[in-house]
Amino acid sequence: MGLLREELGRIGGGELVLPTNGATASNLVEGPSDQGLVHADVAFGQPNIADLLASKTVKLVQLTSAGWARYEREDLAGALRGRGGALCTASGVYCEPCAEHVVAFMLAGARRLVGAWENQGGERAGERGWPAGRLRGESRLLVGQRVVLVGYGTIAARVAELLGPLRMEVVALRRRVRGDERVRTREIGEAGEWVGWADHVVNILPGTAETAGFFGRELLGRIKPGAMFYNIGRGTTVDQGALLEGLVEGRIGGAFLDVTDPEPLPAGHGLWTAPRCVVTPHTAGGFVGEGEALVRHLVGNLERWRRGEALEDRVV
Amino acid sequence: MGLLREELGRIGGGELVLPTNGATASNLVEGPSDQGLVHADVAFGQPNIADLLASKTVKLVQLTSAGWARYEREDLAGALRGRGGALCTASGVYCEPCAEHVVAFMLAGARRLVGAWENQGGERAGERGWPAGRLRGESRLLVGQRVVLVGYGTIAARVAELLGPLRMEVVALRRRVRGDERVRTREIGEAGEWVGWADHVVNILPGTAETAGFFGRELLGRIKPGAMFYNIGRGTTVDQGALLEGLVEGRIGGAFLDVTDPEPLPAGHGLWTAPRCVVTPHTAGGFVGEGEALVRHLVGNLERWRRGEALEDRVV
Repeated sequence: MGLLREELGRIGGGELVLPTNGATASNLVEGPSDQGLVHADVAFGQPNIADLLASKTVKLVQLTSAGWARYEREDLAGALRGRGGALCTASGVYCEPCAEHVVAFMLAGARRLVGAWENQGGERAGERGWPAGRLRGESRLLVGQRVVLVGYGTIAARVAELLGPLRMEVVALRRRVRGDERVRTREIGEAGEWVGWADHVVNILPGTAETAGFFGRELLGRIKPGAMFYNIGRGTTVDQGALLEGLVEGRIGGAFLDVTDPEPLPAGHGLWTAPRCVVTPHTAGGFVGEGEALVRHLVGNLERWRRGEALEDRVV
Repeated sequence: MGLLREELGRIGGGELVLPTNGATASNLVEGPSDQGLVHADVAFGQPNIADLLASKTVKLVQLTSAGWARYEREDLAGALRGRGGALCTASGVYCEPCAEHVVAFMLAGARRLVGAWENQGGERAGERGWPAGRLRGESRLLVGQRVVLVGYGTIAARVAELLGPLRMEVVALRRRVRGDERVRTREIGEAGEWVGWADHVVNILPGTAETAGFFGRELLGRIKPGAMFYNIGRGTTVDQGALLEGLVEGRIGGAFLDVTDPEPLPAGHGLWTAPRCVVTPHTAGGFVGEGEALVRHLVGNLERWRRGEALEDRVV
């Protein structure tokens, strides 16, 4: 990492996610003001937006996250375009772990691994049994079931690819259907209809002003009774109180949440102990080698930039 | 179910697995002696072997399990062949849930879902945190990793198919390589070499005299340090004491066991509390609709039998 950092020369702003066990995800936090950005050509990480706007030199902004909601603003796009610059996400790095995480959630739910785990964890005498009959009768096959992917990007496309051999019926929803999607895709305005159709509702929405509270009480109420709900987008897109009610009342079959609002989710929050609810602490994007992969992604884009080639994961 | 049962007429022996939440798996238990078998044409379930041998009439034995180790004996094959009979497994019914269960295990391990559940389950103050950094740093990608499937049949073939989009390197081992396998397949005698190569060792061996203790101390010791071990075959194929040691000493990266020896695994057994060890109580084959699927499979074979067509999952 040190060598790579030196080779890269002047890289301003943000925090480098190091591939150690103690690494923390920097996705959610905007970096503090960094004077280096005044003179830097490249900003890597989650750089401070005021610094980017003030800089006359930064041309390439390489984010270390799949999402870029915070950076999706006209003033920044204008400033970068004005000096021939670009902004790239690291969606090529996070697409695989996030998609594997979604399928892990779906299979863990279908195979009732949580029920088995609850049994295994029963420490007191008599609590740990062999609930084969009950768990077999609650287990499900994913093959042939219906999935709606709410939000279509690289993660959704990869989820659909991973589900391929399971022959599931997959529909994706996005703001504007382009026609080049690799799965059947519809306008997000049809969400109410599709969440009532699907056995699995996968929320991959980014956290923007537009998506805040998207899964409100009404939309959550339209989810097909017994269907599973997953969130690996952003916690702000869900009315968590309404979700909790749906779980407690048994209308929603179960929830697997990798993101919550706020994060960390307070230790006493009802979602921790809600029936059939699993919370992973924003780990969907993590993997051994995450730091190196981010740096490799950056180096690849720097090389493409120098050669005048199309950048990977470019959004501005 | 009742109607189907009547339609089928005289069906002797075994226990019909009903698709209720209270259903118990009958795979492991040979049915008691049943006088009906003396006159029956078809035996469905896990029929009593002495009855089958004594019967002059039973032509079609349709088992309700993927495995048929108990029925793989020359006297029974001879008796059935002598009267133009056949023996079929229900491997077409169990292949999908078992294969999905294996991939659920693999993804749950890679995405550290167990670590997240342990955190979630911490009820006492301070126990429930937000271990994002630690779990992200421990999470792994399955994409590109190596898998050895020990035992090749319909389940292994389906596992390989499900892993297809993950572009894993998959090798299967079986007694005799036929050349028509859908994955790279080697003789089982090479197991020592391949368990040292793989990141994931998947045991799908049936429980026969030949496979008893197959994963002994020596073979378990050859597993690549840190690799994951899975068992959805039979508990008798593994030296559980040696497995436990490997987990405690940290040589084996983790274990996901759906079968143990004995079953139920005693509440105080070390495997329940071994580090990085998950036990599901023989649930891999179960699913909502299991009972109907078994009856449909039987009816399909009865129709094929009447029409003189090739039977599904025929082994004798």
